[in-house]
This record gives sequence, structure tokens and C-alpha cells, in this order.
Amino acid sequence: MATITGVRVEDVRFPTSATADGSDAMNKDGDYSAAYVVLETDAPDPADPGGAPLGGYGLTFTIGRGNDIVAEAARQQAAALVGRDVDELAADMGAVYRDLTADSQLRWLGPEKGVVHLSLAAVLNAAWDLVARRAGKPLWRVLVDMTPEELVDIADLRYLSDALTRDEALAILRAREDTRQERIANLERTGYPVYTTSAGWLGYSDAKLRRLCQEAVDAGYHHVKLKVGANLDEDVRRLAIAREVLGPDRALMIDANQVWDVPQAIEWMGELAKFDPLWIEEPTSPDDILGHAAVRRAVAPIGVATGEHCHNRVMFKQLFQADAIDYCQLDTGRLASINEIVAVLLLAAKFGVPVCPHAGGVGLCEMVQHVSVLDYVAIGGDLTGRVTEYVDHLHEHFTDPCIVADRGAGTAYVLPSRPGYSTQMYEESLGEFRFPHGTYWLRHNAVHVPH
Amino acid sequence: MATITGVRVEDVRFPTSATADGSDAMNKDGDYSAAYVVLETDAPDPADPGGAPLGGYGLTFTIGRGNDIVAEAARQQAAALVGRDVDELAADMGAVYRDLTADSQLRWLGPEKGVVHLSLAAVLNAAWDLVARRAGKPLWRVLVDMTPEELVDIADLRYLSDALTRDEALAILRAREDTRQERIANLERTGYPVYTTSAGWLGYSDAKLRRLCQEAVDAGYHHVKLKVGANLDEDVRRLAIAREVLGPDRALMIDANQVWDVPQAIEWMGELAKFDPLWIEEPTSPDDILGHAAVRRAVAPIGVATGEHCHNRVMFKQLFQADAIDYCQLDTGRLASINEIVAVLLLAAKFGVPVCPHAGGVGLCEMVQHVSVLDYVAIGGDLTGRVTEYVDHLHEHFTDPCIVADRGAGTAYVLPSRPGYSTQMYEESLGEFRFPHGTYWLRHNAVHVPH
Repeated sequence: MATITGVRVEDVRFPTSATADGSDAMNKDGDYSAAYVVLETDAPDPADPGGAPLGGYGLTFTIGRGNDIVAEAARQQAAALVGRDVDELAADMGAVYRDLTADSQLRWLGPEKGVVHLSLAAVLNAAWDLVARRAGKPLWRVLVDMTPEELVDIADLRYLSDALTRDEALAILRAREDTRQERIANLERTGYPVYTTSAGWLGYSDAKLRRLCQEAVDAGYHHVKLKVGANLDEDVRRLAIAREVLGPDRALMIDANQVWDVPQAIEWMGELAKFDPLWIEEPTSPDDILGHAAVRRAVAPIGVATGEHCHNRVMFKQLFQADAIDYCQLDTGRLASINEIVAVLLLAAKFGVPVCPHAGGVGLCEMVQHVSVLDYVAIGGDLTGRVTEYVDHLHEHFTDPCIVADRGAGTAYVLPSRPGYSTQMYEESLGEFRFPHGTYWLRHNAVHVPH
Repeated sequence: MATITGVRVEDVRFPTSATADGSDAMNKDGDYSAAYVVLETDAPDPADPGGAPLGGYGLTFTIGRGNDIVAEAARQQAAALVGRDVDELAADMGAVYRDLTADSQLRWLGPEKGVVHLSLAAVLNAAWDLVARRAGKPLWRVLVDMTPEELVDIADLRYLSDALTRDEALAILRAREDTRQERIANLERTGYPVYTTSAGWLGYSDAKLRRLCQEAVDAGYHHVKLKVGANLDEDVRRLAIAREVLGPDRALMIDANQVWDVPQAIEWMGELAKFDPLWIEEPTSPDDILGHAAVRRAVAPIGVATGEHCHNRVMFKQLFQADAIDYCQLDTGRLASINEIVAVLLLAAKFGVPVCPHAGGVGLCEMVQHVSVLDYVAIGGDLTGRVTEYVDHLHEHFTDPCIVADRGAGTAYVLPSRPGYSTQMYEESLGEFRFPHGTYWLRHNAVHVPH
């Protein structure tokens, strides 16, 4: 027996705005933050039998103000898990998802979007972490050890049947079932390919941009992403620097973070096409499915990528149905955990769109490696055109941080080996960056009001 | 001078679940609630110079749990208005909207959807109420007294230029400008046509349904709406009763409240078509633009209606572009106030889709009458195919409740005449239904936890 005895939700904020880390054309001053959920149990942790009791640790990512609002929503949603038996949860995570999404009063606040969906992701991410720790396995392993039926049973297929039936989902999973071990062996050798965004934040100087691009080349990156969209002349100058350092053969991606209207996106990309970008990311409103399709038709062969703000599986379904994107950048803090992610991975496989998840932020890299491994091993089954985001900051706050290394096939996430979803933070980090009463914020006189 | 001196935000909940008022296939036990914003000023109220100071009163509607979360978000957003001069705000409400939506950290929690958009609606609705009270006019009058340029300047046209340019918006408004007074005179005579949903909640017995349909006929309604989607046999039985009472010439609308997948919606409507419904409302996920378009193609000539959960103007733009709906049911608590509503009304006019706003809830009828009048007088310019929702409950809590009467052309909203947006609630009502410490909730031992 292992019972969930309590829930703790923390509002954790890192002062990233001070160094322009994470700055882009829409988000100039983000303080990278996490609404962090701890599910406490009364059972020993199999990985540390004499230590602290077993816990589940999950989060969603925000960029500062309002993180308290998400934390409060998570607190209300997670309360339903207190008193539940962990093994019972683990045996039917589809039912856990349905229970937590069945509250029609809270549903009204979305539905399935915004604060209540972000907070649901945090709670369910913690539940998945708990399940994996209880099993003594990394989460990706828990998932790839499931049968096709078990994977379909945890997936939220509601509202998808016009694009993907349960039988089609099963057929996709069964077609990859026999070869899962080969792909795991591949990943054990090479890791999962990544690209870096660390070089290209908009607030960095040209000299810093040039140096960071060179460092990325030296570190073995085949793909580098830059932020664009604030000023066309500056974009041209910065992309020229990046392309010069990267040479003609490495991939350069660009990201406009939703600043353009559709006609403006098309016009601006006409000016940037000469730098041969692999994709333009978030060219316009994340809600604009038909707009992305229009941009894609106009800028081909440059690809269109989006997803970090795509709020649920119904939106991804339509992005696929409308031929609107070349790359699916789902987000582990915005979709409602593995349950909704599996549905999107299945849709992407059916429509033949490569999944290149969004990461960075706080803890997103830690989660996303599990998702990309699941996709390659059990669902998409392919690395062609796939590359997952990696940003090199804030990993020091995690007890099991992701590891990126070049083992001869380019820079890659090393396969996670420790139990869980890799999202536990050090208590010391919480003590320092808990808002507004952590030691960092007390020193900097944080006052808990907006603006 | 009139300065905003403070903000008060209330979590107000009415125990509607006790009587099944508002019950439908998705929402079985809603407690109709309002996140209610009061902007306090230091100026006298022109309508009551010796009384309480001028205030602005606005709200968004929710159905219970989570209303506190919306209230907290509204509190954070409204703080930016404290200290501002009311006449300065009134002179440029477009700038007020842009200021309140410019916080990129809060934007991350949507963007433009869910809790932070609902709360923004509450805050901006209060600001519009304040502006109208300061002018001593009902809000619809403030708006139809604006020039085309002024109306376009308050509208949020961002992300719409592929469907509607500023020049096109101006042309629509100018084409209706000279005839505004004729249409105002029309409305003074007949009011704005309404339909009733009061008869058709899913939790009502057959006998109550029959009685309420008959009362609607006797009261002069030409349109009645019923909830469907929980059980096909019951829907057939209930629609047969309604059609029998209404006769062949009155319009019967049905509302599935998002319970179906797309193929299921098409199949179910095949069975209900024989009752000749005017429209099927919310047949599937409110995010599913392409799904609504597929349902519309399949069920024609039955119309498709949606909008109460359509979270912003970008979604409405696509519903129009995809020919997905026959009726636009925008919601005054979900769109970010008049600023976003004017943009949607302009889009609807351009695409020729009648706007039949969602109402009911708490205070939505009070607001929606102003919006429908604005649409007819200055934007859409037509009553053909238009009918606005009316639900007969909770009006007793408002100081200037909407009035519905039959003046010979069918039941209609009587043109509002008192200053403001009609959304001020009695302090006595707040004292009774404030959650969890109002007298009603104290008597019923409300405990402020979910479930």
C-alpha cells in the first residue's frame, strides 16, 4: 500500500529577466517560473528505502506574474488525489485523467485551455512521476513497457474520432511493437537528437550571438534556433552572422513568437528566406490554424512549426487536418500530461508530421526527453526530420537533470536512467526561489503585486 | 476630475444546482456565479449626485468552482487601473485595452483564453460601465454615438488583417452611419427580438417542459431552445413535446453543449432532423473549427451555431473563414469586452453571418442587450435572422435589470435607458451570495474546497 497523504504546491520563480535569457519579440522580460506540485505519500521510495518517503514531483512552466494563479488552480485540482492509493492510480491512469477533467464547474474556465489546463498538466505530471518512481523506472520506460491497448487506454481520444479512431491508433502502435527494442538500443548508443536555442535570444548583443553560435558548432550541434520578429533590419543582420558561423550545411531555425499578422508573416519571411531557414516557428497567433496553413503555402519550402502555445489535442488535430504545419512542437507543460500527449503523438504519426517538442523554460527539457523517446520507440518510430529543443539553463535546480552529449551522431539527450519524470527540484532551490518568500526574492524586495 | 481610487473584486455564487436551472448534457450541476469587479472613484455619480460616488461595475460569468481563481486574476489585472483618470480612460479605451493586454507574463497563461481572458473581460466590462456612467448614457448609446473611426480605434483588430483590414472595417461602419437614427427609432418601438431557453433545461420533467413551452408561446416567444445530447430516446421524446406545443411555425433550437464527437453529432442530428430545428448549438468541442464546418455541411439546412465558449476573435475569424457556422453566439463574459466584441461584430458583418449572442448565466442578458443594439444600429444593420438569448432568472440581483416585453412584434429586449452597462448588483445580493462568507453560504455550511 502507498497512499497519497498530502499535496504541496509551490510558486517558484527564477529572475531570468535580469540577464535577457529567454527574451523574444513577444516576451521581453520573462521570469522563468514553475507551478510545482508535490504529491506526498506514506510509502518508502524504492530508489532510497531509508530516505524520504516516496513522492511525485510535477510542474508546468510560466514566465512570472500569474504563476500564483496557476498554483492555486493546481491546488484545487490536486486535492482530489489525496487519499488515493498509488498502485490503483498506476493501474488506470486513463481513469485518473478522466476524474480530474470531469469537474464541469472547473471545465467552464477553459474548457481544456489556459490556467486550468496548465495547472492540470502540473498535477498530472506529478502523478505520472509518482507512478514511475513507484515502478522504479524512468517514465519513458514505464510507457514503452505498455501494450498498444494500454497506451490507447491512457490516451484522451475525445473529439478526435473524425481524424483518428481507436482502431487506427491501435494499428499505429501495433505496427511498431515488434521493433521497439531495436530503437531503444539505438537511443542507448546515440541519444535523442537536440537543437539549441541558447544562442539566439533577442536581448543578446551581436558579439554574444556570434560567440554562442560558434560554441554551439564546437559542441556538435547540427541545428541552432534564433529569435526574430522585433525589427527586420536587425533580423537580417543577426541571421547573416548566424549563417556565416554555422556555414551552409547546419540547420538554422527562426522563431517569431506570434508577433505577426498573417500577411505580415508572409512579407517578412520573403526577406529572411535568403538565409535558408529550416522552419519559421510561431509566425502568428497560436490559435490561427487557417493562418498557419496560409503562411505555410506562401513560404514553402521553408517549414512552418508551432505548438508550444497550442492548448490541446483538438487544436493539433486541426493543424494536421489543415496541412498547416511541418513540425509539431507540443509542450509538456501545456498539454494535460502524457494522457493528452500520447493522443497528439498518435495523430502526428497518422498524418506523417514529425514531432519536435518545445522545451527550455523550467523543467521542460527534463520532461521532453521522455516524450521524444516514447515517440520514437513506440509511436512515430522514426528519427527522420526530428530534433528536440534544448536550452542550457536552470538544470542545476533539478535532482535528475537532463544530460546532453555528442556521442558521434550530433548533440543528443542521453537516455534518462533514473526513476520518474526527472522533474524533482532541490529543496534548496525552492527555499531560494519560492515566490515571494524565498531568500532570493526577500533580498530583492519582491512585492506580491502585478507590475 | 474623477480618479479610480480602488478596486473591489467579489466571488459571487448562486446555488442554481439545487433546482437544475441551467442543467445540460455537459454541465449537470452548475452554480451560476460571477467574478464581479467594482472600480471605485472619488467623483459624484451624475445619475445620483447626492448618493454614493461614481463606480464601474462589471463581471464575467462562471458556473461555480474556480470562480475564486478568476476573481484573483481580475484583482491582479485591475490593479493597473487604480490611480487612472476616468475621462482619460474614456477618451481612449483602445489604449486601456492595449495596456491591460500588454503584460507578457500574464499573456503566457492564455494567450487570450481561459481564466486570464475571462478575468480581463470582467475588468474591462467594469471600465466600460464606468465610462458610460460618467457620460450619463447607457453603454449602447455611448457606442452608437461614436464615429466609424472611433469605433475602429477601440476594436482589437490584431491577427485579423487576412480577413478584415482597417479600411474594410471603416467601410462597413460608414455604410451604416447615415441610417443609425432610423434603426434606433425601430428599436424604441419594438425592442430587440429574443428567444427563451428557460423552458428547456435537461433536468426538467416532461410535465414542466410542456408547461414552460406553453408559457413561452403565451408570452409571445417565436423561438424556444431546448438542451439535448444526454440520451437520444429522451431527446426524441422531449422534442416531440416541444414541437407539439410550439406548432409548426415557431422556431425550435437545440443545444448539445459540446458532448459529441463530429461523427456522433452528424449521426444524432440525423435522428433529430424530423423536429425541424432552426439550429444545432455547440455540437462538439468549441475549439473544433473544422469539425463545426464538417457538421454544418452534413446537417444542412439545419443551421450550426456556436460561440459561448469561443475564446477570442481569432477563433471567430476562422469559424467565418471556414464557413463553419450559420449563427455567431459571441459571449460578453468570454470575449475581452466591447473592444474584442466590436472586432467580432465587424467580422460577422463582413462574412454575412448573423450575430445571435449567448446570454443567460448571471448578468449576461443585462450586457448582451447593449451589444445587440450596437450591432443592429451601427455594424450589422439588420434584424433578419437575428434573435438574442434570454433566460429568466437571477435578474432580481441587478439594479437595472433587462426588461423583456412583447410590443406587437414578438418578445424583445426593451431598449436600456439608464446609464452604464446594466451590470451593477445590489449590495444585499452580494451580502447573501458572496462565497464562502455570504449569509446563504454560511447557512449552508459552504466549505471553500473543491468537490
